[in-house]
Amino acid sequence: MREDRFVPPSAAFTRSVPIRFSHCDPAGIVYFPRYFDMFNGLIEDWYGQELGYDYAELITGRRFGFPFVHIECDFKIPSRIGEVIDLTLLIEEIGRSSLAIVIICHRDNIERLRARMVTAMMSLETKKAVPIPEGLREAIAAYRRRTAGDA
Amino acid sequence: MREDRFVPPSAAFTRSVPIRFSHCDPAGIVYFPRYFDMFNGLIEDWYGQELGYDYAELITGRRFGFPFVHIECDFKIPSRIGEVIDLTLLIEEIGRSSLAIVIICHRDNIERLRARMVTAMMSLETKKAVPIPEGLREAIAAYRRRTAGDA
Amino acid sequence: MREDRFVPPSAAFTRSVPIRFSHCDPAGIVYFPRYFDMFNGLIEDWYGQELGYDYAELITGRRFGFPFVHIECDFKIPSRIGEVIDLTLLIEEIGRSSLAIVIICHRDNIERLRARMVTAMMSLETKKAVPIPEGLREAIAAYRRRTAGDA
Amino acid sequence: MREDRFVPPSAAFTRSVPIRFSHCDPAGIVYFPRYFDMFNGLIEDWYGQELGYDYAELITGRRFGFPFVHIECDFKIPSRIGEVIDLTLLIEEIGRSSLAIVIICHRDNIERLRARMVTAMMSLETKKAVPIPEGLREAIAAYRRRTAGDA
Repeated sequence: MREDRFVPPSAAFTRSVPIRFSHCDPAGIVYFPRYFDMFNGLIEDWYGQELGYDYAELITGRRFGFPFVHIECDFKIPSRIGEVIDLTLLIEEIGRSSLAIVIICHRDNIERLRARMVTAMMSLETKKAVPIPEGLREAIAAYRRRTAGDA
Repeated sequence: MREDRFVPPSAAFTRSVPIRFSHCDPAGIVYFPRYFDMFNGLIEDWYGQELGYDYAELITGRRFGFPFVHIECDFKIPSRIGEVIDLTLLIEEIGRSSLAIVIICHRDNIERLRARMVTAMMSLETKKAVPIPEGLREAIAAYRRRTAGDA
Repeated sequence: MREDRFVPPSAAFTRSVPIRFSHCDPAGIVYFPRYFDMFNGLIEDWYGQELGYDYAELITGRRFGFPFVHIECDFKIPSRIGEVIDLTLLIEEIGRSSLAIVIICHRDNIERLRARMVTAMMSLETKKAVPIPEGLREAIAAYRRRTAGDA
Repeated sequence: MREDRFVPPSAAFTRSVPIRFSHCDPAGIVYFPRYFDMFNGLIEDWYGQELGYDYAELITGRRFGFPFVHIECDFKIPSRIGEVIDLTLLIEEIGRSSLAIVIICHRDNIERLRARMVTAMMSLETKKAVPIPEGLREAIAAYRRRTAGDA
């Protein structure tokens, strides 16, 4: 299998995740829905730690929801219990009320998995799409600019 | 939102899944990685109940693995606790050692979610791809023929 | 290991659960938190199919919550992918706003696991315990009577 | 509800866990099986970071398994998305091939949940219980001594 090299942009939001016993299946590798769980956690942390928006407050306070409308994912190299993988989040596109997020799972600068996830912003009250609030949009656009060069 | 009508081919493998409390998130809808868990279960049941191949035996006895190499999924209509959804499995393509499976989640003939999942067949011993065994390939091809007309 | 025989009372609510790939860990047996997920599903089905109370409606309509306050569980025999296990629900005690539920996991009349789970009934509005409504209490008490002799 | 104060022994192994969207159920609180997932992760980290034993290596290299044989858990205060909880691990008892672990979930020195989990040590090859290896036993006993005073 051809290896895909990935070096995250220096300003990119990257977090390490230890692969746990509970992540793995009887074949000894990560059971794939578990990756999506990790990705959701990464996005939460990115809101809070990178953009300065408390994800829980956006949901329970301001009553926004962030359902995924489209996901695509290429699984290239499996990960095993005891390994530590890096997850990097990049922004591909900012729509009026949607966001195309790219998450790259890598280790030692080799890409293991790449997901593109389109999330919408909606009101949990009206159940309708809402425009991304201006301040948040600017924070995301700034993040996108300072991490451009990949995705 | 435009509604997509879906009527499964009459010979298609369809199973109903009740949406449980445990499937749902604080927004009251299915937490998306849970769908992939349901899909994996549907594929297991399809092997056993439709193709006549015991999935557990394929894995623990014959030591095959079925990792996903590519997944894409469109989420159209969310599902809520207490609803019963139908999952239909169709085959899009049969490769030498891979399979493109389409799973449609629907209710009342309205499509709620559509996933395309490419799975590879590998040996858990050598960790390498293996050709789909002839008998299994024929069973899948026959299923594909009798459910053609959609996917 | 001594085997514990278990034959469910004939009127007891029992459901079969196939052990799936996704339930199992790298040791090839059910990853224990997955059992609790199965138990929660069994309780939902028991409300709906045995007592005639729609669980989803109790939660989203009448705004009741059923948090667990105490759980204890003995794991006796592990279960593996491909096995089908039986789960039987019995009622040990009915309190003012709490319920002691016993769930026995068995196969071929051999007990594999036994859990005792105390659940409270609360209002999702006031976040306070509420008495079990009279009709529901009577349905549970009747179930308990017709399944007495074990637990 | 009476509050139980808990101040972990100064030498105790404590890790913080952010409560994520994915941990929570439609009632907005942690779905209880998720706690057991967190506990399993805490135990893994304790082996590696406190005892100096690589958990993955114990399983995949030395082929030990650590099934739970008994679990009991009191849920006192629910936790919500956005909260950060502390998990402290203490050792209650060291048997020949079993370990009674106590995990306390707390926040601001108030106990939220307390679990007692008895795990056995077994060989994944023979499927039989094995005595805890001497070095590991000593490391656990030393940990127990330096955190005595609670549990």
